[in-house]
Amino acid sequence: MHVGVLTGGGDCPGLNAVIRAVVRKGVQEHGWSFTGFRDGWRGVVEGDTVPLDVRAVRGILPRGGTVLGSSRTDPFVLPDGVRRIGEQLAKLRTDALIAIGGRGTLGIAARLHAEHGVPCVGVPKTIDNDLSATDWTFGFDTAVGIATEAIDRLHTTADSHRRVLVVEVMGRHTGWIALHAGLAGGANVILVPEQRFDLDQVCAWVASRFEATYAPILVVAEGARPRDGAPVQGSVGVWLADAIERRTGKEARTTVLGHVQRGGSPSAFDRWLATRFGLHAVDAVRDGAHGTMVALRGTRVVRVPLSAATDRLKAVDPALYAEAGVFFG
Amino acid sequence: MHVGVLTGGGDCPGLNAVIRAVVRKGVQEHGWSFTGFRDGWRGVVEGDTVPLDVRAVRGILPRGGTVLGSSRTDPFVLPDGVRRIGEQLAKLRTDALIAIGGRGTLGIAARLHAEHGVPCVGVPKTIDNDLSATDWTFGFDTAVGIATEAIDRLHTTADSHRRVLVVEVMGRHTGWIALHAGLAGGANVILVPEQRFDLDQVCAWVASRFEATYAPILVVAEGARPRDGAPVQGSVGVWLADAIERRTGKEARTTVLGHVQRGGSPSAFDRWLATRFGLHAVDAVRDGAHGTMVALRGTRVVRVPLSAATDRLKAVDPALYAEAGVFFG
Amino acid sequence: MHVGVLTGGGDCPGLNAVIRAVVRKGVQEHGWSFTGFRDGWRGVVEGDTVPLDVRAVRGILPRGGTVLGSSRTDPFVLPDGVRRIGEQLAKLRTDALIAIGGRGTLGIAARLHAEHGVPCVGVPKTIDNDLSATDWTFGFDTAVGIATEAIDRLHTTADSHRRVLVVEVMGRHTGWIALHAGLAGGANVILVPEQRFDLDQVCAWVASRFEATYAPILVVAEGARPRDGAPVQGSVGVWLADAIERRTGKEARTTVLGHVQRGGSPSAFDRWLATRFGLHAVDAVRDGAHGTMVALRGTRVVRVPLSAATDRLKAVDPALYAEAGVFFG
Amino acid sequence: MHVGVLTGGGDCPGLNAVIRAVVRKGVQEHGWSFTGFRDGWRGVVEGDTVPLDVRAVRGILPRGGTVLGSSRTDPFVLPDGVRRIGEQLAKLRTDALIAIGGRGTLGIAARLHAEHGVPCVGVPKTIDNDLSATDWTFGFDTAVGIATEAIDRLHTTADSHRRVLVVEVMGRHTGWIALHAGLAGGANVILVPEQRFDLDQVCAWVASRFEATYAPILVVAEGARPRDGAPVQGSVGVWLADAIERRTGKEARTTVLGHVQRGGSPSAFDRWLATRFGLHAVDAVRDGAHGTMVALRGTRVVRVPLSAATDRLKAVDPALYAEAGVFFG
Repeated sequence: MHVGVLTGGGDCPGLNAVIRAVVRKGVQEHGWSFTGFRDGWRGVVEGDTVPLDVRAVRGILPRGGTVLGSSRTDPFVLPDGVRRIGEQLAKLRTDALIAIGGRGTLGIAARLHAEHGVPCVGVPKTIDNDLSATDWTFGFDTAVGIATEAIDRLHTTADSHRRVLVVEVMGRHTGWIALHAGLAGGANVILVPEQRFDLDQVCAWVASRFEATYAPILVVAEGARPRDGAPVQGSVGVWLADAIERRTGKEARTTVLGHVQRGGSPSAFDRWLATRFGLHAVDAVRDGAHGTMVALRGTRVVRVPLSAATDRLKAVDPALYAEAGVFFG
Repeated sequence: MHVGVLTGGGDCPGLNAVIRAVVRKGVQEHGWSFTGFRDGWRGVVEGDTVPLDVRAVRGILPRGGTVLGSSRTDPFVLPDGVRRIGEQLAKLRTDALIAIGGRGTLGIAARLHAEHGVPCVGVPKTIDNDLSATDWTFGFDTAVGIATEAIDRLHTTADSHRRVLVVEVMGRHTGWIALHAGLAGGANVILVPEQRFDLDQVCAWVASRFEATYAPILVVAEGARPRDGAPVQGSVGVWLADAIERRTGKEARTTVLGHVQRGGSPSAFDRWLATRFGLHAVDAVRDGAHGTMVALRGTRVVRVPLSAATDRLKAVDPALYAEAGVFFG
Repeated sequence: MHVGVLTGGGDCPGLNAVIRAVVRKGVQEHGWSFTGFRDGWRGVVEGDTVPLDVRAVRGILPRGGTVLGSSRTDPFVLPDGVRRIGEQLAKLRTDALIAIGGRGTLGIAARLHAEHGVPCVGVPKTIDNDLSATDWTFGFDTAVGIATEAIDRLHTTADSHRRVLVVEVMGRHTGWIALHAGLAGGANVILVPEQRFDLDQVCAWVASRFEATYAPILVVAEGARPRDGAPVQGSVGVWLADAIERRTGKEARTTVLGHVQRGGSPSAFDRWLATRFGLHAVDAVRDGAHGTMVALRGTRVVRVPLSAATDRLKAVDPALYAEAGVFFG
Repeated sequence: MHVGVLTGGGDCPGLNAVIRAVVRKGVQEHGWSFTGFRDGWRGVVEGDTVPLDVRAVRGILPRGGTVLGSSRTDPFVLPDGVRRIGEQLAKLRTDALIAIGGRGTLGIAARLHAEHGVPCVGVPKTIDNDLSATDWTFGFDTAVGIATEAIDRLHTTADSHRRVLVVEVMGRHTGWIALHAGLAGGANVILVPEQRFDLDQVCAWVASRFEATYAPILVVAEGARPRDGAPVQGSVGVWLADAIERRTGKEARTTVLGHVQRGGSPSAFDRWLATRFGLHAVDAVRDGAHGTMVALRGTRVVRVPLSAATDRLKAVDPALYAEAGVFFG
């Protein structure tokens, strides 16, 4: 059996752990060979490949990024994209394709499989943890850990000074990183994209916190927006700090974590999850379970249809957000 | 409502996060008051209490250990232990008791509830992750993270030198920490208590690793034992390194992590889990769900009978161990 | 002997380590007693004190912030400030005062000693490492470590994507944190307040970096400014990313670390330095060396006049900056 | 100019940072070319080389270990070793040799230069910080940081339980790591090879600590030995824990950090120091300053004779050890 592997979409710690597990298990248990495609679907369309054997995956487990490179290339919008994929796979005698990626990358895999019979198996990847088909996605735990450590450090200053401290974390569409890091870091306010925030309420929380002789720490997802529809340009964290300063007269400072959250070595949890996803993707290929992707349910890795990757965004449940509300203010 | 809280058994990062969540939610959402009992069941028997209000739990979220202290006192073996518990709870007008602990502590809570009608709600705690009733226990992720970081660092030396490196991790009865840290750290051999190891096989793995021009890293749970029943005194890690050195002639070095694994600040995951356990324990008390404990299933916190805490040790599944075997040698 | 202790100015990891060392040595070696003044000079003026004994300093070594609180109160601008200090010290029968702080706090101590004979001993503190009298100040190593870890994580993204990554670090007047973190993190451009930067040159470096098929990481001190005097409002990091994007057409992202750099547990180096400063401040008090402060020269702690604290800002030496230039572009 | 580079002796975080700085500066500022010799002096004797250009050093700054490999080969004990070195250097037209290593490696460089005119420049490396010619050596700060973090974590357990906790750290001949990590971690007893310890005294400290209702943490360098000359086999940490348990009846647990201390990513300080050593080694080569090595004095990098590397072990000064004694017991 000869298997192609590709990674698509944005950076996410754990991609290399998946690749390594796929190759180690495929080679050692089944004697398969592999081809790596460079930069996601672009590499498949253009036949741009990377040798992928046990030696190539040595030492990559703890490293962030992806040794295969990534892109957002969509073969369906390229002239002849799909036909060229068919040609390349035939030329390389590829029996199956393991696509590791998010909504975009896996949506393409789902269509290629459903409409063109390309033998795809998927591995879901999103730092935002917003896939409804799986309990957790790798990369998320690492991002939450980094944001939590930042909040931990801000508590020192919150304790000693009288400043409002705002931390902007990732999350354009969903607030999972904000919610988990806010809970783990003991933030006083958590703002998520799923619920527009009321600046008056936020300022009231800030004020009540100061009364408790302790400065407030606010965690805001980059996609959070105020209820009144005021336009937010640039960083919402900077915007929020300015708005609070103007309303409350309290000095406010912002930390914008940015790409720091998606780089560096994956956490132990993410490495475990990514490794198991890789091992089970090989099982799916072995079983000819094309059109499926792996997913975590509880502590078990299961298979779900590839289409589940694009089905529905897993938004922060209002009940979960309300649960966290006991720590606000 | 007046609620007592106690922590029992060994250290485990996340205990303070549970205590804080219980108090914050109980006070802010329900207006309850709390009493902390010092050193687990000892404090209940002796009426040794600690004030427990919002102020008392401020700042404890990121801290290891437990502000309530802990012990392994068993009221059932103390003269009049159970009667004295009844008296103390009556004296303090305690409406319910939240017991945070492992097999021992929760087993006592289960009996007190079943046999004496004491209104107990449990929160499971074990660094070893060996409770079958819950997908994960807090403290485990922190321990795995610490062990993984140690393995990461050893790879440098394994790469530069020609030494066998042995890391002994926690796990007297189950090998969950060894399995997860071994997978996450990219160990070449993982030895767990659930399966006696064959020293010949271990030495064969060591030898094959050296042929691949890279030194082997072995992760061994403190409770792992050789198949032939050779007596192991003191650290099994030290014993194993000696045995490998004698058999293979290769220099071997040992790292014994010990208590380092159960101390210090909990990981973000463990804080999230512990916090949610605390919030849901309050819900259980509110609902009068005595005799239950909280547990994680997937990403949901559920209630199970307290007796589930002592039912059955969750051993490492042979299939999971076999899955990891692809990385051995 | 009865000794007062105060901390002034901004947060800096290591303050608690100094306080602990002072008290432990004073009590155990000399049998002295201590009074802590709350919030820097404000506490002395107002007689606002905190009990300070061995019990009070237990467990504070690894904690950021200061258990004594801090402020920027200047008794010389308060009505009767200096007279009230004299009264409070007399009332408490204070034989000496250990002032821990930066330029502001120690400048006040210097004047109080020189003009009013107040028996002050100083311990220098600045996260910016910009005191010419000492080789290193505590807090700096911690800040550099945090900034370096952030840069490390950005390399992953720089490697996988084609984005310009800008990290803004602390340093209003001096670029020590930027220089050290930039060198340690392998940044491609380091911008410091001591030398106005040329945006054309910066964009040329960015372009040349992209040619080397790798994305550029720029570290910019918050006080760095462009040569042409263009007004920079808000974060210079955000400003720089915008400017680069407009000029080069490359997408640019910013991380603004902010107060994260001055919070949290001090590094081992900072704890060692702060502890030794504390021990030697006690020696200075014992020797009646009022009007001096402790300083590090090589690996030795020495005494210098308190006035040295305010003498001269230690700017980044142009030769050192040029030395780092070999890594630019 | 063509320059050879080699690394010798044990692992030490920062070696790659030196190599990278040497190559970057040599190439970019002077247009030199480089040859890497594999595995220290062995590679020079045998002409075993590695290509060493800007591409080869990309991304190695944060990595532990050495991309050149290391060994303890001594050409002076090999048949024809010195003559073969001369031949290889002539064959490769090597104008100078930068040797990065400890006492052994630099001692060989010193002899080769003094006795055979080989144009060597040295960069000192020892994780133990025991070179008298330099204030600090790289790798030491990283090791101290790792040991301090372990001690930090043990405090949690010391606080909750009543156990004696022993941490064995590196240091066969000198106690610098023990002293610095012990001070930074707030250990209650620090034992170093420079002063034989009195077990009675140690047990007295342990007892007094328990009276203060807190469990003791002891840091012991692997080379520390008891005064009465009792034979210590295997780990002194394990030996000490056993001895304390027998004498005091208190349960004692040991952490043996082992090679974890010398692996993994170097601290920011060590990267800064290693980078500057590399830059200045290039200056020394440029200046024809053969027979010298770089060293840190205060914050300046200076040159000293290569012979200084082997002159004298920098033992822990009794005064420094006594200074730390205020925290014992």
